[in-house]
Amino acid sequence: MLKIINLGGVSVQKNMFLYETENEALLVDCGIGFPEVEDYGVDLIIPDFRYVLKIKDKLKGLLLTHAHEDHYSATPYLLREIPLNIYAHPMVQDFLLNKLKDFKNVNTPKFTSIEPHTSFKIGNDFELTPYRVNHSVPNTLGFFIKTPSGTVVHQTDFKFDWTPIMDKPANIRKIASLAESLNPTLMLSDSLGATHFGYTRSEKYIEDSFDAVIKDAPGLVVITTMSSNISRIQQALNSAKSHNRKVVVSGYSIENNLEVVIKHKIINIPEGTLISEKEMGNYKDNELMLVVPGNYGQVGSTLDKLSKGEHRRLKLTPNSTVAFSGDPIPGMEPQVDKVIDRLTLLGAHVVYSELQQDLHVSGHGSRGDLTLMAQLIRPKYFWPIGGGIKHMRAYKDMLSSQGFEGDNIFELLDGETLEITGDFVKKGQKVEIEEIFIDNSNQKNSVESIVLKDRKALADNGVVFVVVPTSNGEVRADKVEIYTRGFIYVKENQALLNGMKKNVQDTLEREKESGTTKDFSLVKRVVEKALSKHLYKRIGEAPMIVVEGLNL
Amino acid sequence: MLKIINLGGVSVQKNMFLYETENEALLVDCGIGFPEVEDYGVDLIIPDFRYVLKIKDKLKGLLLTHAHEDHYSATPYLLREIPLNIYAHPMVQDFLLNKLKDFKNVNTPKFTSIEPHTSFKIGNDFELTPYRVNHSVPNTLGFFIKTPSGTVVHQTDFKFDWTPIMDKPANIRKIASLAESLNPTLMLSDSLGATHFGYTRSEKYIEDSFDAVIKDAPGLVVITTMSSNISRIQQALNSAKSHNRKVVVSGYSIENNLEVVIKHKIINIPEGTLISEKEMGNYKDNELMLVVPGNYGQVGSTLDKLSKGEHRRLKLTPNSTVAFSGDPIPGMEPQVDKVIDRLTLLGAHVVYSELQQDLHVSGHGSRGDLTLMAQLIRPKYFWPIGGGIKHMRAYKDMLSSQGFEGDNIFELLDGETLEITGDFVKKGQKVEIEEIFIDNSNQKNSVESIVLKDRKALADNGVVFVVVPTSNGEVRADKVEIYTRGFIYVKENQALLNGMKKNVQDTLEREKESGTTKDFSLVKRVVEKALSKHLYKRIGEAPMIVVEGLNL
Repeated sequence: MLKIINLGGVSVQKNMFLYETENEALLVDCGIGFPEVEDYGVDLIIPDFRYVLKIKDKLKGLLLTHAHEDHYSATPYLLREIPLNIYAHPMVQDFLLNKLKDFKNVNTPKFTSIEPHTSFKIGNDFELTPYRVNHSVPNTLGFFIKTPSGTVVHQTDFKFDWTPIMDKPANIRKIASLAESLNPTLMLSDSLGATHFGYTRSEKYIEDSFDAVIKDAPGLVVITTMSSNISRIQQALNSAKSHNRKVVVSGYSIENNLEVVIKHKIINIPEGTLISEKEMGNYKDNELMLVVPGNYGQVGSTLDKLSKGEHRRLKLTPNSTVAFSGDPIPGMEPQVDKVIDRLTLLGAHVVYSELQQDLHVSGHGSRGDLTLMAQLIRPKYFWPIGGGIKHMRAYKDMLSSQGFEGDNIFELLDGETLEITGDFVKKGQKVEIEEIFIDNSNQKNSVESIVLKDRKALADNGVVFVVVPTSNGEVRADKVEIYTRGFIYVKENQALLNGMKKNVQDTLEREKESGTTKDFSLVKRVVEKALSKHLYKRIGEAPMIVVEGLNL
Repeated sequence: MLKIINLGGVSVQKNMFLYETENEALLVDCGIGFPEVEDYGVDLIIPDFRYVLKIKDKLKGLLLTHAHEDHYSATPYLLREIPLNIYAHPMVQDFLLNKLKDFKNVNTPKFTSIEPHTSFKIGNDFELTPYRVNHSVPNTLGFFIKTPSGTVVHQTDFKFDWTPIMDKPANIRKIASLAESLNPTLMLSDSLGATHFGYTRSEKYIEDSFDAVIKDAPGLVVITTMSSNISRIQQALNSAKSHNRKVVVSGYSIENNLEVVIKHKIINIPEGTLISEKEMGNYKDNELMLVVPGNYGQVGSTLDKLSKGEHRRLKLTPNSTVAFSGDPIPGMEPQVDKVIDRLTLLGAHVVYSELQQDLHVSGHGSRGDLTLMAQLIRPKYFWPIGGGIKHMRAYKDMLSSQGFEGDNIFELLDGETLEITGDFVKKGQKVEIEEIFIDNSNQKNSVESIVLKDRKALADNGVVFVVVPTSNGEVRADKVEIYTRGFIYVKENQALLNGMKKNVQDTLEREKESGTTKDFSLVKRVVEKALSKHLYKRIGEAPMIVVEGLNL
């Protein structure tokens, strides 16, 4: 029997799947997630490694499907725990090595390079055949995974693009013929685009829009996109070349990524086009183009700094043109709008998706692409991945309407498992997983969920600290002190503060009379409850109340 | 000279404009705003009343343009400060009276009813002629405001709809003829749709989509929309009637609003269609329709409760159909997605904008509508309002491209002012305004910005309280206690806590030796700084550190 466990949980992010047979296991992807706004002080989220560590002796390797952070960037955290044999395209390896520079005390990964259409084995139980698909980063691969208990297709994020910018298009004749001969039982498939009708458009489509923006730009042109979107950088370079502009690529991650794709000869840099920041002074504004990350309005990104006039070396002149070339991430719009507003106030002409829709195409296939892949592979069972619950449901509805058996399309939640035996698939036992919150991306501090819960309470209503001194085991009500933060503006609320103090003292006196003050943990609870009630009645607020003793 | 001040600030929300002549003043709108995610514990935002209170003796009235919360719902807070003559359509008055039920100790408003195309005076200086426009709530009005210093058109939120559901369409012949005779110098115009091309579609367009959703629904149909979107409720009722379904409208605000429009005979309820929650038991699921608020995923809304199975009386059965009929608000998508996911897991078929785009049309005009209004009025000067900076700029770019003089289109920021003298308009002096944060919508607690700043710090890294006891003016380092919340998980970090205590004690000893411990405010600063440095070095974290004395 082959088990497949979704250890990353239902999410667009922190992808991690475990393929497990009786004697061996294979991990597919190990990515990070990004916190929600209410995950206060959390910088990123990594998958729960507990189950992987439990079966670590069986683990034969980690397979990375492509060079996106939500698929490979949690690997350093796992390398801190165990050594890993990593199977990845050489470009993906270099992206990961760049990441690893920021980490200390991790196991050195042992890499095996993989290429499309060249089969290889991992352990005895997993025979893999990678095939090329298109996505918003080059060298994204899908896999036929043949095991003693059946063959599975692992189809991570993808789209079909017959005129890609730097990749080759998927060889669907080969994919179909592999499917015909291997006859896979199950396909895990990207489903994020299942709520979009039609086919996703080709990257090539964007070139004319870039040209249109640059052609009329009176000054500096700034293109902002995702750091990993190499083909977008290529297009910017092409467009700059044909309009006689020099290009500066600026930003930590984007410069790192650029270095990798230059090394791998994946990007084609028109001669004399790419210059350094220092050389910018030799050119006029209308002879220059900047390519920078920050299209999601990320605080601290190059674009964010430019919009605030806080970049150390670069400065926006009033007649600049700034073009956003990237998918908006749901929930990030207010942040993006702030950057747009600041750029506008600086005098820049800002071009974003509402004003000009053809500056970006998605990296994910729409219903047309998803259907095409399903029809090429034609497995008996499906498992939509890479999206949320609504995407799984849309994928299921879509395939059901095409005659695929609805009961054979599984919607699996966090930690849920499929069991494959030959051509039969069923749900297996669930593995308990949690989200692991990381406070500081390069340190090992994880944030316990109880701490996060406290932060939410602190954020909502602030905190009231009550210090109850005791001497010789006796509670000293006269010495009670109350301190607050994030609750009320103390200077204007002295009366409220006095009332709170009196409430605590009254409670303590009452407790003393009934002789219960010997048990301080009980006293704490009673004081907290009484003060909480008092505050709610008095001002309708419920701050966090912390009562602590202090031995005089 | 006439001054117009944007007291609400640049925003889609908390609209409030002051028209001020030498002797008199008129307030236009008084609306609330909704907090951003980082405004922790803030329920709503109201405009800054300081300037209004300063000139309160000149104030002749408050004019309300329409029944949306961001235009009238801050009125109770102003009524708490001063009495007001309020000029509003009778329906808007009743919406406001409903709001006022939740407030105590406010001045009773003195209402004057206004109707489209009937001029009236406010004070001596303001002669107003209202005209009908369309929007997502009935009885929305635009105004010609004639003053001794020139005539201004105040065109709040609007669109043109030639086939509206319950309103009449705008009489553009009359609007144009008023403009021709009054020859306005300036128009303040809604600009929110200036980033959308074409014309906004008619509300009528939605009817067929409603029918399509209901026709095939096997069980209960739930329609979710904004509480104030009366025409959408009308359409739901119409559609229910033609498919033999009974309608239940459920939710505090939507029921209140329904009551008002029934009273004003604005809504047309097909006989026998509307039933109460109690009567639902008499019908089968496929004979029923629920209309509920919650389309933005608002926590605590009827839809939110339904999705959590937490509604006291209503319950979703697995074959229900839930249709979202409302604009997504930027930034709310993750919250909406959570509701969609929960509804999906309950077995509901959920229809939302990505899957079916024709379940909603905007209440705001697109570039076509905005242009049409500009061409009907043809003032010399323009002031785009009702949007953010990017909308102002898009409006300006749009009109400039049509030959209007770009320099005559003003982009005004928070508290900025225009001065009108006959047919000349220029920027005037700025009025300082702040956002006033309200913690609990029906109480008078406002949140000081310093408290909000503390909450942000608390949310990011938690808090460390250091209590430094003193006896007889001597610091007692031996008695120091440290408490934390939202910082670290104390049980696992005893060593860190001990290190922190030692750090504080060492600092105190050092200060004692140098004889500085007499000045406790200095001690506090030194202890805080040293501990902060210690923590950053040790674990890279910067919690809020609070040092307080306690007199033994």
